[in-house]
Order: sequence, then C-alpha cells, then structure tokens
Amino acid sequence: MAAAAAISLLNNGDLASSVNSLGTGRYASVYSEVQNSRLDHPLPLPSVLCTSFKVVDGPASSAAGHPEEIAKLFPCLYGQPSASLVPDASGDVAMNQSLKIGVVLSGGQAPGGHNVISGIFDYLQTHCKGSTMYGFRGGPAGVMRGKYVVLTPEFIYPYRNQGGFDMICSGRDKIETPEQFKQAEETAKKLDLDGLVVIGGDDSNTNACLLAENFRSKNLKTRVIGCPKTIDGDLKSKEVPTSFGFDTACKIYAEMIGNVMVDARSTGKYYHFVRLMGRAASHITLECALQTHPNITLIGEEVFAKKLTLKNVTDNIADVVCKRAESGYNYGVILIPEGLIDFIPEVQQLIAELNEILAHDVVDEAGVWKKKLTPQCLELFDLLPLAIQEQLLLERDPHGNVQVAKIETEKMLIQMVETELDQRKQKGAYNAQFKGQSHFFGYEGRCGLPSNFDSTYCYALGYGAGALLQSGKTGLISSVGNLAAPVEEWTVGGTALTALMDVERRHGKFKPVIKKAMVELEGAPFKKFASNREEWALNNRYINPGPIQFVGPVANKVNHTLLLELGVDA
Amino acid sequence: MAAAAAISLLNNGDLASSVNSLGTGRYASVYSEVQNSRLDHPLPLPSVLCTSFKVVDGPASSAAGHPEEIAKLFPCLYGQPSASLVPDASGDVAMNQSLKIGVVLSGGQAPGGHNVISGIFDYLQTHCKGSTMYGFRGGPAGVMRGKYVVLTPEFIYPYRNQGGFDMICSGRDKIETPEQFKQAEETAKKLDLDGLVVIGGDDSNTNACLLAENFRSKNLKTRVIGCPKTIDGDLKSKEVPTSFGFDTACKIYAEMIGNVMVDARSTGKYYHFVRLMGRAASHITLECALQTHPNITLIGEEVFAKKLTLKNVTDNIADVVCKRAESGYNYGVILIPEGLIDFIPEVQQLIAELNEILAHDVVDEAGVWKKKLTPQCLELFDLLPLAIQEQLLLERDPHGNVQVAKIETEKMLIQMVETELDQRKQKGAYNAQFKGQSHFFGYEGRCGLPSNFDSTYCYALGYGAGALLQSGKTGLISSVGNLAAPVEEWTVGGTALTALMDVERRHGKFKPVIKKAMVELEGAPFKKFASNREEWALNNRYINPGPIQFVGPVANKVNHTLLLELGVDA
Repeated sequence: MAAAAAISLLNNGDLASSVNSLGTGRYASVYSEVQNSRLDHPLPLPSVLCTSFKVVDGPASSAAGHPEEIAKLFPCLYGQPSASLVPDASGDVAMNQSLKIGVVLSGGQAPGGHNVISGIFDYLQTHCKGSTMYGFRGGPAGVMRGKYVVLTPEFIYPYRNQGGFDMICSGRDKIETPEQFKQAEETAKKLDLDGLVVIGGDDSNTNACLLAENFRSKNLKTRVIGCPKTIDGDLKSKEVPTSFGFDTACKIYAEMIGNVMVDARSTGKYYHFVRLMGRAASHITLECALQTHPNITLIGEEVFAKKLTLKNVTDNIADVVCKRAESGYNYGVILIPEGLIDFIPEVQQLIAELNEILAHDVVDEAGVWKKKLTPQCLELFDLLPLAIQEQLLLERDPHGNVQVAKIETEKMLIQMVETELDQRKQKGAYNAQFKGQSHFFGYEGRCGLPSNFDSTYCYALGYGAGALLQSGKTGLISSVGNLAAPVEEWTVGGTALTALMDVERRHGKFKPVIKKAMVELEGAPFKKFASNREEWALNNRYINPGPIQFVGPVANKVNHTLLLELGVDA
Repeated sequence: MAAAAAISLLNNGDLASSVNSLGTGRYASVYSEVQNSRLDHPLPLPSVLCTSFKVVDGPASSAAGHPEEIAKLFPCLYGQPSASLVPDASGDVAMNQSLKIGVVLSGGQAPGGHNVISGIFDYLQTHCKGSTMYGFRGGPAGVMRGKYVVLTPEFIYPYRNQGGFDMICSGRDKIETPEQFKQAEETAKKLDLDGLVVIGGDDSNTNACLLAENFRSKNLKTRVIGCPKTIDGDLKSKEVPTSFGFDTACKIYAEMIGNVMVDARSTGKYYHFVRLMGRAASHITLECALQTHPNITLIGEEVFAKKLTLKNVTDNIADVVCKRAESGYNYGVILIPEGLIDFIPEVQQLIAELNEILAHDVVDEAGVWKKKLTPQCLELFDLLPLAIQEQLLLERDPHGNVQVAKIETEKMLIQMVETELDQRKQKGAYNAQFKGQSHFFGYEGRCGLPSNFDSTYCYALGYGAGALLQSGKTGLISSVGNLAAPVEEWTVGGTALTALMDVERRHGKFKPVIKKAMVELEGAPFKKFASNREEWALNNRYINPGPIQFVGPVANKVNHTLLLELGVDA
C-alpha cells in the first residue's frame, strides 16, 4: 500500500519530503514511533462480525420519557425495535450490494473517531464491494454544503488508531431547521446516499434521529445511524454502555494526576487543585478519582443533590486540610469537575442577578450597584476572591452576560480555602502552611492516541454501523455491548434513538432531547468512591496509573466506571 | 521477598489492607498495573560494571574558569583527575570490605532518583557485602540533623523504577555555612560514614564538593560523590552528557503537546500557548520542539542573544499568525520557556525600577507614581495587559519584591498578541479570528514513571557512584558516558567536580559555582531546530510522540538533545 510505505519511511522523526497528492494534513506530516506503531495495531472484531450474520429485531420500543410526545415528533420512527446481530450461516446480510455511505463527525473531539470511520469503511470493503464512502468535512456544515472527500484505503490508512478528528474534521453546526434539512436532503440526493453515519454526542444523535425521520418522511432512501461519542461519558444507556473517548481521556488525565500526586507526596508542601474537563456531568472526575485515589473529589451531582453552597464546599476542603495537618500532611490533591459551579444553585442565582443588574447599571467604584443584589447574593459575592469578582464584572460575552465558563474554579477555591484557613489560624484551629497549585486538564485528553479499548470499541461501533446500514436500518445508534467480556463475545446491534429520548419544553414547544446521563449517586462507581473517600482523604492512598501502554499485559485494561456499571468490581 | 509479595497482591487497584511495619508511604499504598509492571523491569548494566574492574585516573584537571581561585577554594581537591572504570581481571576494586554509605536527594524532583539509590544499594550488596546504607530524610537538612532511615532490600523494592523522591524525600536546604558543615560532620562521625552520595543539580553538586573538601581537610574518612539530577537539563558537560530526569520529563510534556497539536489541527480555531517548566535554561522547550514541531518556539537564550524586547516577541508571533491566516490556518501551537521574561533585559529593568518605587511610594490611582519610571520602562509598562500590570503592583513577596515567577507568561503573551492583531485588523493587515488557549506543563513531568532510558541511566549512575566510593574517591560527580551506544558499551567513571566550576563574585567574595549549561545557539540541537522552524511555522509538521511506552520496539528511544549533542542525528 502506497500510504503504508510512505509512512514507514518517516520513522526517524525527520521532516517528510513526500507530500502526497491528496494534500491532507497527515500525509504531509511525520509520525512519531508510537504513532507509527499504532497504524498496524490489529483490531479484533466481535465474533458475530466475523461470520455471516442476520439482524434480529427486538420488541417495539418506547421513549425515555413522554412517549406520546416523542411519538408525535417522530411519526415514522417512533416505536421501532432495537436490532441485534446474530450469527446466521445463511447470512441474510450478505447481499454484497454496493452502497454509497456518508460519515460526519459532530462536536468536540474524542479519541477513537478515526476508528469509527475505519470500521465503517472496512465493513463496506468486506461486505459491500464497490461501495463509495464520503467523509463530510468540518461537521454537519459539510453535509449541508456538500463539502466532502471520497474516502479511499490510502486516505484512511494514516489515521488508523490515531487520535484527533482531523481526517475530515468536525464542527458544531446543527441540522435542525427546515432550511437546513432541505440542504442535507439535497446533498443526500446529489450523492445518491444510501446512508449517513453521524458520530456525535447527545445533541448530535438527537439531530441524527430528526434527520432520519425527515429523510424517511420524504421517502428518501438515505438511512441515518448514530454513534456515541464524547469524552464526558454522559451519553450512555442500558444498550449503549459507554461513549467512546471517555476511556482514553480519563487515562490521560489520570496519568497526569498520578504524576502530580507523587510530586505532592515527594515535595510535601502543596495542595494541587486539579480542574478536569466535563462541564455537564462529573463522570471524568469520578473515573479519575477511582483510578488515582485523591484526597478530595468534588462531584457536581452530589454538590447539587446536597444543595451545598460555595461556603460549604470551601469548609469541607478546609476541614480535610486541617485534619491532614494533624497527621503532618500539608499536601494533597483535589479533583474538581469543570462544571462545578453550575451545580451550585446560589451561584446560578448570583449570576442571574448580576446579568440583570449589569444590563442596566454601571458598576460604580463606590459599590452602590451592589445594593441591588439580594442579601444572600450580596453575601456570596463578598465571599468571592477579588479576582473572581472582577472577572464576573468585567469579562462579559457579546450579549453582556457573565462568562461562567471562564471562571477558573480551581483558582477560586484555592483563594477561598486560603481565606478560610487564615481565619481558622487566627482562632488557633489550624497552624500549618497551606499552599495551593492550580491545574486544568482538558485539551490534553481530547485528541490523544486512543487506548486499545477505545480503538477496538470504535472499530466495532463503525463496523456495526456499516452492518446496520446495509440491512436497511435507520434512526438507530450503533450499540456494542457485553464489554466486560472478551472482544469476541461483544454484542453488536443498534438501539432506537427515539428510545433514548425525552422532551423538553423550549419556547413553548416540545423539543426532543437525549438526556445527558449524569453521575448517579446510587450507581456503583459513585458508591465505590463514596465508600473509600474518607480513607483517601486522611491517608495517602495515591495510585499513579502511569502513561497509557499499547502493548504488554497492562494494555487492555478498561476504565473503572464502565466495569463497575457492568457489575464487575475493577 | 516480602515486599514483592505484598505489592503483587495489590494488582487490582483496590485498597491495600496490608501496611508493613516500616510504615512508609509506598507500602501503605496501592500500585497501578503499570507501576507494578515496572517493579521488576530488568536494568542492564554497562558491561564494565558486570565484571571485575579497576579505577584508572586521568590527567590532572583544571576548572571551567578562574582555576587559580578554584584552587584556593578547594586546596585539598583542586586538580584531582577524573576517574574511569576499566575491566580488569585482577580487579583491584574487589576488596569486598563492608561500607557505611549515606545518600541524600537535594532540590526538585526528577524521574529516576529512586533508581540512583537502588543502583548504589545493589552495588554495595554485590561488591561490599555487609554494608549499611542510610537514606537521609528530607534533603540536606536530614544530613545536618541526622535524620535517616536504614535502607533494606524490602524498603527499596517498591520504589524501583518508580517516579518521585518519596522514598526519602528531598529538600532545598543547603550545607554551606561553617555551622552547617559542623552538623554534617557530626552526622558523618556518628554514623561512621565511609561515603555520602548527593543527588542534585548544579548548586547541590557545588555544595557536595565543598562538603568533600571540608571532610578531606579535617581528615574525615567520609568521601562525597555527586550525581547529576535535574529535569531542566542544564547540568551537563563533556563528561556528564545529561542530567537524569530530563528525558522523562520532556517525553511527558511532549506527549501533552502532541495531543494539544492534534486538537489544534482538528478544531482549527485555537492558538495554544504552552509554557514549559525550566526557569533558567530553555533545554526542555527546545527538546519538546524537536519532538513535536510546533509552529513557534521561544528559546530564552536566543531572545537574550538577539536582545529582543517584549514587543519584538509579540510582533514575531503576530507575524506568524498573520502568515498562517493567509494559508487558512487560524490555529497553532507555541512553546514558551518558563523563564522567558528573565531573558528580556527591558523586563528586568522594569522590575528593578518597580521594586525600587514600590518600596518607597504608594501606588496612587491617578498614576502619579508612574512618573518615576524611566521613559522606556513606562512604555513597556503601558504595553503590558492590565491583569499583568495589576499583578506586578499587587502581588509581592514578603520582601516587597515583584513576584516575577508568578507571571503567567503564556497568558500575558496571548493578550499582547491579541492587542497587536486588533491593531493590524484596524489597518486591514489581518482579518481572521485569533483565539488563545493557555497551558502550563510543569508538575506533571517531575515525578512521572522514569522512561527506560532514565531508569537505566540512573541505575548506572548509582552503581557507578558505589564503585567510586568503594575505590576511595571523593569530590567527583558520577559520570556515565557513550550514551548513544548500547548500554553494555556505556562508560562509567567520575569527573572532578572542581573541573566543572568557575567562580562568581558575591558580597565581595569569590563563590564557586557550577555554571548552568544554557542552550548553545551554535549547538546541534538548536541548529537543527533553527533550520526547520520556518517550515514548522507556516506548515503543519506536528508530531504526536504519544505516551511513554515501557515495552515494545519504541520503548528505548532517547531524547533528541542528547543524541544530537553526541553527534547522532536522531
């Protein structure tokens, strides 16, 4: 294969002189030894995908909530059964007709996206010879504008088992208005598409289902299959045990956290406040806690359920710092989910009031404007460190709103804990030294080389999506299950996207949504964490997971969250 | 071995119930699979250390500068030859007498420190049966206060090939005053020490030599041997080709940078400004550039040599951003050494003036105080982003000085480039979108699991230090060379610490110093970078090194800087 040869020449870390005619980023690039070693990493398939199989439908499905509304929103697709692939010697899905299939990446990066595409491609090459595959460029906008690249073996090869979404890139546009549906329709017709695979998160999969409904309602042959993607891990259900990318991202963050822990213990004088990506749900933070055993882990869902205030959170941290000081430990590691303050109702209230006031008033130096705050919001505002107060007042988005996402929660908490400890010091309740160090781990994890698990899982998701499309399915999300078992025993099929949906009332209308799967306080991962955290808080049970290994006996380990949710105590 | 058994029980990531009687952090802890897999990682030794050998002295040495002053400061040790181990069947160093040896970790963490200790220990176990080894706790203060732990096979085992310094911990105290020398002397006498190994950076090795001189001048039998440690990579010479920890730390940072690069290319809309640890020299930044090919890399030594101003640096970045925008690339990755602003003379001048003014004046809102700044400093001050101005004025250390180390250079540069690009936009010279994302990679790299290179190199450094002590040497730094060759062919010996020294005038006296090895603009690593950087700036030649691998064909790769300095084009 030309591409393989081109790549293997570039082993030595030097600049490539060869730039191939396709002009893609990867061909013009150089690969590290590790990147190179991943290109030919063998990907085992679930055994059902290795033989002749047929697609078996389950019972009619319902919805996650408000089935009658979902039925109205999806008149063609509502109620359709989930599908399972089962081995079948007669092989009803061995028709070997050629297909025209598109694929699109939607939303933020997650390790493994390239393998989903490879999986679809390889399925078509094996089972539907003569097929054509289109990669829509730059996300859903590429579908609407008909911007695509024809995928070939040479084009795909350099992206196998590689991180990033740069093969065709992604985008955050949505296909949801009638005009946008029409544009997508035109592309589907122009390319004579038999199917489209949408690789995305909860929103993107909701929109994928709307598109499937739209195509079906117009009697277009184009089927739409979704794939569960997000490092946040909040797109999952009984049939979709995990979203891809979560495993790799958590392992990368856990590597860094583990290193910081060893540093904390070696240095003995810093509290490291580590904020982790994941704005909506705290799965990443919880998984990293299970992998590394930090002294304190804040879980947004728990903060919300317990209606904690920022003062509560600060006091809880200060309590642990004081107790640890009694044991002579003046260091520690604290994990904070990116979305923490979204879970604190009083902060939401303060921000709402600030937005209202700042829209109409000037912020006078004398602080007269403050009098417009309700007493409890004023109290909270005064509790905030000066730098955060200024940030709230000065840095606003183009609509004039306070930019919550820009608040560096880890730095804010360091300052608040510092202030609290100073007060305790004055009362004689604490007499050690507190020094905070802040970290934010985010972008480092979204495009890492996918772990063996994500590589294999994504390949199966893509391969399965190909099978679903070939068998004429639409409005399903590719579902690979039984993930605690060896790969050969993994199940493959598709779940009705409508079955994952509920509705939300927006602007007086019902809108379908796939609800984000939040951390369940009664779920096995949280319970395991909760039963250990006191031990982790006061003693030092740090674990350093180390860098992701791709070969050797430790390479195939799966994340704790998934295993615990599958009933396996990792 | 009891420890081995205890550890292997802890494979499953669960809490250990067994805490051994020594009560160390590691025993009470749990290991990840990767940590566990490293415990028994085989460490090849240079072949000269596997057979009988003798120590051969080279010619008399001089000093790196002002030999006559160094000779005065080290009357006993000055001029002593370097020592090389050579195979010798008669084996003059096979006396097999038992020794009492101490070891101390000094200064910041670097991956591999535990392996230096294991190397010394294993040397003594093999060649000096019946020896006792003391690990001084908490750095040089442990030597002065006589705080130590007796090292045993069981105690050492859990730290083999593990990151961190937590086996005995480190500290930043120095042994340099007569009183402190006396304390160290008392400990040496009390423990009847034959030798002490000081594992540290340039300062620590300077002090190790002063201690060696002191012991020798008082006819104490205690010999002192240094070991070159620092992730910064700035302790090196012809005989000491690299300091340990540099290889691992750079690989960890490069993993993160590579991931961020793939993210930048996939997202297509962010400029990532990555500040990297390394305050004095820019070796880490240069090495990471060679590993990853960023669009822009600032090297402090070059900024200094070219007498660049902050405005120059800003303009240079803005130029690349504009040129890339012409090619449709509105993203990129920029590496910045932690110590950048220390290399910009005008910033030093501004800080000096600020310290002077702030010591005597109040900072009035109206800005009258500003009139005391010289015109060029006033201009620079006004060029700085508001947040940085405030930081300079408000956050001062206990002596009232501006805290340069706290300036987040990456954020400062983002804001300055933003301002510059806004101005160019108004002139019609730029019409794209610039969005900066800031990162600081530091603590993540100091305590990672050591790479195979650092594991092996450190073990040889320690083993060699044992041999030097056994053969009666003092005032040498353990030196392992020929590192581009297979491990068996590595050379082992010791270099006279006085040969690395020059003097600096401080408080009217000459003080000996081992000069930090800065990035040489005529050296092979910088030249390779310089000859490629234009290509890297405008095109996207990103390399993603991926996570450190411990097994497989890619596990034994050595960093570019070392290889290039050894004349090998990596």
